[in-house]
Amino acid sequence: MLKQAKGRIGRNAVLLALLEEEEEGKITAHLDNLQWRYCKGKVGSMELQKIVASVETAAKRNNVVNGELYREMHALYHAVVEAVQGVTRGQVELGDLMRTVGLRFAVVRGNPYENSKEGEWIAVALYGTIGAPIRGLEHETIGLGINHI
Amino acid sequence: MLKQAKGRIGRNAVLLALLEEEEEGKITAHLDNLQWRYCKGKVGSMELQKIVASVETAAKRNNVVNGELYREMHALYHAVVEAVQGVTRGQVELGDLMRTVGLRFAVVRGNPYENSKEGEWIAVALYGTIGAPIRGLEHETIGLGINHI
Amino acid sequence: MLKQAKGRIGRNAVLLALLEEEEEGKITAHLDNLQWRYCKGKVGSMELQKIVASVETAAKRNNVVNGELYREMHALYHAVVEAVQGVTRGQVELGDLMRTVGLRFAVVRGNPYENSKEGEWIAVALYGTIGAPIRGLEHETIGLGINHI
Amino acid sequence: MLKQAKGRIGRNAVLLALLEEEEEGKITAHLDNLQWRYCKGKVGSMELQKIVASVETAAKRNNVVNGELYREMHALYHAVVEAVQGVTRGQVELGDLMRTVGLRFAVVRGNPYENSKEGEWIAVALYGTIGAPIRGLEHETIGLGINHI
Amino acid sequence: MLKQAKGRIGRNAVLLALLEEEEEGKITAHLDNLQWRYCKGKVGSMELQKIVASVETAAKRNNVVNGELYREMHALYHAVVEAVQGVTRGQVELGDLMRTVGLRFAVVRGNPYENSKEGEWIAVALYGTIGAPIRGLEHETIGLGINHI
Amino acid sequence: MLKQAKGRIGRNAVLLALLEEEEEGKITAHLDNLQWRYCKGKVGSMELQKIVASVETAAKRNNVVNGELYREMHALYHAVVEAVQGVTRGQVELGDLMRTVGLRFAVVRGNPYENSKEGEWIAVALYGTIGAPIRGLEHETIGLGINHI
Repeated sequence: MLKQAKGRIGRNAVLLALLEEEEEGKITAHLDNLQWRYCKGKVGSMELQKIVASVETAAKRNNVVNGELYREMHALYHAVVEAVQGVTRGQVELGDLMRTVGLRFAVVRGNPYENSKEGEWIAVALYGTIGAPIRGLEHETIGLGINHI
Repeated sequence: MLKQAKGRIGRNAVLLALLEEEEEGKITAHLDNLQWRYCKGKVGSMELQKIVASVETAAKRNNVVNGELYREMHALYHAVVEAVQGVTRGQVELGDLMRTVGLRFAVVRGNPYENSKEGEWIAVALYGTIGAPIRGLEHETIGLGINHI
Repeated sequence: MLKQAKGRIGRNAVLLALLEEEEEGKITAHLDNLQWRYCKGKVGSMELQKIVASVETAAKRNNVVNGELYREMHALYHAVVEAVQGVTRGQVELGDLMRTVGLRFAVVRGNPYENSKEGEWIAVALYGTIGAPIRGLEHETIGLGINHI
Repeated sequence: MLKQAKGRIGRNAVLLALLEEEEEGKITAHLDNLQWRYCKGKVGSMELQKIVASVETAAKRNNVVNGELYREMHALYHAVVEAVQGVTRGQVELGDLMRTVGLRFAVVRGNPYENSKEGEWIAVALYGTIGAPIRGLEHETIGLGINHI
Repeated sequence: MLKQAKGRIGRNAVLLALLEEEEEGKITAHLDNLQWRYCKGKVGSMELQKIVASVETAAKRNNVVNGELYREMHALYHAVVEAVQGVTRGQVELGDLMRTVGLRFAVVRGNPYENSKEGEWIAVALYGTIGAPIRGLEHETIGLGINHI
Repeated sequence: MLKQAKGRIGRNAVLLALLEEEEEGKITAHLDNLQWRYCKGKVGSMELQKIVASVETAAKRNNVVNGELYREMHALYHAVVEAVQGVTRGQVELGDLMRTVGLRFAVVRGNPYENSKEGEWIAVALYGTIGAPIRGLEHETIGLGINHI
């Protein structure tokens, strides 16, 4: 069974990506309290591979994942691709379809289940805008990917 | 250009779907203040069409859309399908792939752009769990669809 | 190289599906003149398999394909599925996504290339409306699939 | 309810894309008579973004859409992407899958419904050939996208 | 780095699904020697959920996975869905697209990497025929999904 | 009806791609005996079009297909794309999603059905590894496409 709201890994990742820096104090304090690992970052691009690379680099640098274990990078990779599907909604393409994104991302790693044998899980949340490569011709978008790690 | 955070239609819809009832007061007060239309609901199913139908019915009953205008139902329909893609991440299927969802949804309709000629837009947010049809074998999921209306 | 306009198998199939019966005389006379095989039909459903079955049955009954040769049914099947992708545009689903179609279809079999070694090809065209299962809440849709046979 | 055949926006867009210039007089006269806006163009490419850009540029230059309103560009964009799905049938990719297209396109904007409250809609039709980047190794393809605007 | 051929988990799973019972002795002896867990089974259906359920049930009954840990079922589930994508090639649908499958499946769980920290992985292989629901109108198909567990 | 195991075109193609050179003698002797045409090759890339091009070039050079007949190249192309879907499982993309493949491929052309009127079919099998563009961060993958030719 999933933990109560405060231990919900997806909800925490989404709020971290969604809230402005001045609003996020409660979430980070809560994650610190749970001793869960997390990081935040920003990326804007017409190339999906830059989104993937930015999230992976941030997660490695902040020790949210161990970049030398394929097991961990595999878990993170699939979580990122799932989050990207929420952002792109149908065609997992940006520049090829003449669109660009400006995203804030959050990666959270922790134990969201009551049963300790369920072990660690990782959540990747993306939030920002998607649209034509012209300022203002854009609307919001969100994506969340969750995987066991 | 998108309005400041408080006027962001997607962010408001996601927070409405994400927050517990006791937490949502600020969001609903803010939407009431903007005079934007919105509604919330819950749906659990192994059939995607029930998700679509539940959101459509709630939006019609709460006068967020006019169910007799195809124009409005077309806008809402595509926003729902886009939100469902964030929830299903890859295969837009539930029962056919042996999985089920338990979702809270929010629909918000308003004017998120500074330029009044951009008119009204609609956002559909879905948040909940997806997993095997066995209690507890599930993780969180989110989706957001936005369309002009 | 493709034959001139009159020998274009896809164009002929699309026109046959698109035109009203009273308008189609020129096309059928032209196809008869080319000694190409063809058939037309109608199907309305929320189930994709009924679309596939209707087209296959009509093509077999009108001797456009030989239903006992897998080779021919395989060629036709893939042409139908490709046409369905134009109709559904993104998610190859109807009822599961709460939508229904009312379609006219045409199947044309002939030799569209100047080089006789290119042999026979088959084109499947679908044209009609797609929308909510409520009369009037619908817009037009088209699809074309072409395969060697 | 959709207007009779002559007011069908998708049918008119498809015929405009399908017919040779010397055949299209009836359609353009009819559209002029309805006071609907429309444009035609050609594009050949291995890059999808060039298809999107060509259609968008033609529609803006011919005042079929207002390029400064995101609302209108958003409606057009989704109609183009839907039309591209009919053309690509499964994988929304060209050069990445070693194929190229040569297309004629038509964009039509008008009021296809009897009920005037249904307002304006936009249809994008693409017709031409798809195949290997070698002349002659290609077959026909079509796509239609329709959206409220 | 992946182990030499004999320790390749995907290759072993595919051979187990591909070979007739009288041919598989070498593979099973090899897997027993590695002390890897595995199982085999058969399933024929027009419904994808039966494929998923058959593989999950066999894997649980043969102790290849622990059915009470969501972590393990989540790993297996995604491996099955990936294998199904190889089988269905494009549209993850069977009956809805008027086709059926007759499959042999194999699930293998082991340590395919030299570095012991990479831990356990799971491979699901499917091999059989796919085609119309008429005996003989079918061709072969294969799929492989691999995940960390 | 499909021929017995030895005449199964997909199985033969998969084994040819899967087995090491020193193991493949039985398969090639068997294919030579059936007088079926086949070829093998290797390709590693982050670009899907290189996979498609490598398989097409090998099949043409080894006279498995006639590169001047669109009919044959069309059959081969769709078999390659289907095999690629097994390899990529969901998103038919490599470099755009920050991943690369190292593959062995086999193309086999023959008469797999008892009924001689079913004529020739072509099978394309791909086997190798997929993963991050960093040596070792990868797992196995397989794909098979079959078409009438």
